[in-house]
Amino acid sequence: MPNYALAMTSRVVVIGGDAAGMSVAAGVRRRLPDTDEVIVLERGTWTSYSACGIPYWVAGDVESPEALVARTPEEHRRNGIDVRLGVEAVAIDPARRTVSVTDGDPVAYDRLVFATGAEPVRPDLPGIGGDGIHGVQSLDDGQAILDELERDPRRVVVVGSGYIGLEMAEACVLRGFDTTVIEKAETVMPIIEASLGDQVAEAMRARGIQLRAGVGVTGFTLDDAGRVTAVETDDGAMPADLVILGLGVTARSAMAGSAGLPLGPKGGIVVDDRQRVEGFADIWAAGDCVATLDRVTGELVHLPLGTHANKQGMVAADSIAADLLGEEPRLSFPGVVQTAITKFCSLEISRTGLGEQQARDAGFDPVVVSIETTTVAGYMPHAGTMTVLMVADRRTRRLLGAQIVGEEDAALRIDVAATALAGGLTVDDIVMLDLAYAPPFSSVWSPIQVAARAAVKALVG
Amino acid sequence: MPNYALAMTSRVVVIGGDAAGMSVAAGVRRRLPDTDEVIVLERGTWTSYSACGIPYWVAGDVESPEALVARTPEEHRRNGIDVRLGVEAVAIDPARRTVSVTDGDPVAYDRLVFATGAEPVRPDLPGIGGDGIHGVQSLDDGQAILDELERDPRRVVVVGSGYIGLEMAEACVLRGFDTTVIEKAETVMPIIEASLGDQVAEAMRARGIQLRAGVGVTGFTLDDAGRVTAVETDDGAMPADLVILGLGVTARSAMAGSAGLPLGPKGGIVVDDRQRVEGFADIWAAGDCVATLDRVTGELVHLPLGTHANKQGMVAADSIAADLLGEEPRLSFPGVVQTAITKFCSLEISRTGLGEQQARDAGFDPVVVSIETTTVAGYMPHAGTMTVLMVADRRTRRLLGAQIVGEEDAALRIDVAATALAGGLTVDDIVMLDLAYAPPFSSVWSPIQVAARAAVKALVG
Repeated sequence: MPNYALAMTSRVVVIGGDAAGMSVAAGVRRRLPDTDEVIVLERGTWTSYSACGIPYWVAGDVESPEALVARTPEEHRRNGIDVRLGVEAVAIDPARRTVSVTDGDPVAYDRLVFATGAEPVRPDLPGIGGDGIHGVQSLDDGQAILDELERDPRRVVVVGSGYIGLEMAEACVLRGFDTTVIEKAETVMPIIEASLGDQVAEAMRARGIQLRAGVGVTGFTLDDAGRVTAVETDDGAMPADLVILGLGVTARSAMAGSAGLPLGPKGGIVVDDRQRVEGFADIWAAGDCVATLDRVTGELVHLPLGTHANKQGMVAADSIAADLLGEEPRLSFPGVVQTAITKFCSLEISRTGLGEQQARDAGFDPVVVSIETTTVAGYMPHAGTMTVLMVADRRTRRLLGAQIVGEEDAALRIDVAATALAGGLTVDDIVMLDLAYAPPFSSVWSPIQVAARAAVKALVG
Repeated sequence: MPNYALAMTSRVVVIGGDAAGMSVAAGVRRRLPDTDEVIVLERGTWTSYSACGIPYWVAGDVESPEALVARTPEEHRRNGIDVRLGVEAVAIDPARRTVSVTDGDPVAYDRLVFATGAEPVRPDLPGIGGDGIHGVQSLDDGQAILDELERDPRRVVVVGSGYIGLEMAEACVLRGFDTTVIEKAETVMPIIEASLGDQVAEAMRARGIQLRAGVGVTGFTLDDAGRVTAVETDDGAMPADLVILGLGVTARSAMAGSAGLPLGPKGGIVVDDRQRVEGFADIWAAGDCVATLDRVTGELVHLPLGTHANKQGMVAADSIAADLLGEEPRLSFPGVVQTAITKFCSLEISRTGLGEQQARDAGFDPVVVSIETTTVAGYMPHAGTMTVLMVADRRTRRLLGAQIVGEEDAALRIDVAATALAGGLTVDDIVMLDLAYAPPFSSVWSPIQVAARAAVKALVG
């Protein structure tokens, strides 16, 4: 197929101006001649911001939303990207290669990128639309919650105990508000095993966050003005002047679905390893709106995180530029291993790979071990404690996953396990890794290796 | 060959009771029947101690040498190990399978283990034998230096700027002593590249440690009582009441060499991947006295570190037990990647794999990049700065090494590179790793990935 685009000016249109979208736009811009156009349609007013920083802004650790912005629209424009703010795409026509927008003529494209992000889950419960009920996804959400806190709510209720929910709960408690977390499951933080979740629950109570676990939300009581006054649960009503939804997010992909693009878990757009949408040669997608390959299971998952968005944006940009320039693409996205980390109350928490049930669901025969150790050499004055849980495959002895809960300097060690997963290492390999050792940093056996040794022992038994 | 040992009581003799030796003894003890003997000959009075902790003991962070002892002789004895303190082995007779000791009859063995450790380099300079000139290797060395500091020396001079030398220099300055480091090379800390060494030199000066780089030591002036009064250098004499030698160590292997055991770099005993001495079916060696395989170059190196000693001890124990029990050994030691880490003054410093010159010497065509980034998301209040240097192979694109100098929370990230080296990852693979990201821990691109991206860019150019 001759590459007609080579002979003429091309136009790349990106829908969405956050991490993934701007990363595609910037990457394409660097590679294409100046005569080509790179247009970003952003319905909001911000570009390239760190949604992950919102809890720290709300807590007061970060002064302003501007600090969370890696690059402003103006900076992107100076780099030759046509950033159009306040322009919401409402439909695409893949046959005609146009994007319809709320205000103005349809925008034609040669290559299109979906970078529409994710949206907070808002379960279809009575009263969910009331004032004072907020998800946490955009800087505007962050500002809305800060405005609510200015009104000095007597009681804040966070629904859900995923890491965003917990980070927001801590921010509210740090600012002196009466804060309760409601979690449907019996243990908090569903991304880690229940045994570790108990440590998190204990840390929450110590920090003064009230926890109602095993309680399902059934609706919201609103006053005459339509403002929330209580959260209704299967254990009775709980007064609330501000509700923060921490129930996770789903891909913002309704428009993509309407145009016939394939959707996977939680609405994530299905793409190949160049971030090109399956079945649509002119359309790419990246970031929180896509489904992603899990490298351990080979299955698709939805894992909305800035770190994936940036990488996928880089890969999509490379693929689009290569496509337009008639070159071979250099990059591909190998997928993720479900790494996550957070600091919460007195604890650091991280995980990577599969938990026990995930491993069983994926057809592995997992062995699971859990060890306690010190964060640094036990005789050092600042030695803290930490727990490492490790999951390994009985047949191949390969690492399947690891989880950490511990004091300062505990959680980032998960990166060793994340790297080991990418390298397909066995627990035996991990025991023999040459990891950094000096008393202020580690015991002579690094915590991940202490867990790997326990796994080796369990595999013998 | 029939395994006669199966039919009778066996005796395993270990020379040396520190990390490697006691790790072999404990491992063998767990596997062998009670009727077999496990004997450890230790010339000193301590077992299983952390020599790496000595600088923190001298600095006052650790209260007593007992805190550095992981397991006392009495604890080992309770586990069925015959620990003989104050017994120095002086020769072995591999044909008769005996060890001669300073005091008493020769000790017969069925299987022998060298775990004799290392000894500080003491160059053959005039006056080197004077009082007040100390290496740093054993707890007794630590005590000797503490005793010297009790005498309130006016001036402490540390010769050599390896990490032990620098850690000791900092300990002395923290205790208020006038401290100077003399380094023969133009830059400090030879295990890192000169560009990073300059940052270390700056941190030293900021902490009040005087540095004389590019100065060679030619001897020591002693007073009539044989006590050091000055260090003589090619730049004149420098007054000194206490001299600490930080010139590295060599394997303590003269006895092994005399018995015909093969010796490699810095006198390290040459062993196979089960820690069995090449050519000696009944003799194993582990820890600071052995030569070790570098996994990146395939060459032998001498890398005396507690972390290797423990692993090698475990492997040797498995091999000896398997040998005596007529089983297949389960473990092998894959070698090291030269990982090292230290905290020094305001800096954290770490390295793994090969530096630029090491890479050239090993026949690689290295590309070297160096980047500056923040330790955590730049907008977080505790964000520090750090430098990552990365070495990659131009032909295979494989990671060859990495080095880090930075503020708090910088250095331990070297573990990602150490794990990547073990897994044979390319810099492209590293860019796509799913490493932990949350604002209090990392930027959206982890520092190791920022360096890997720079390496990828350099490989294109």
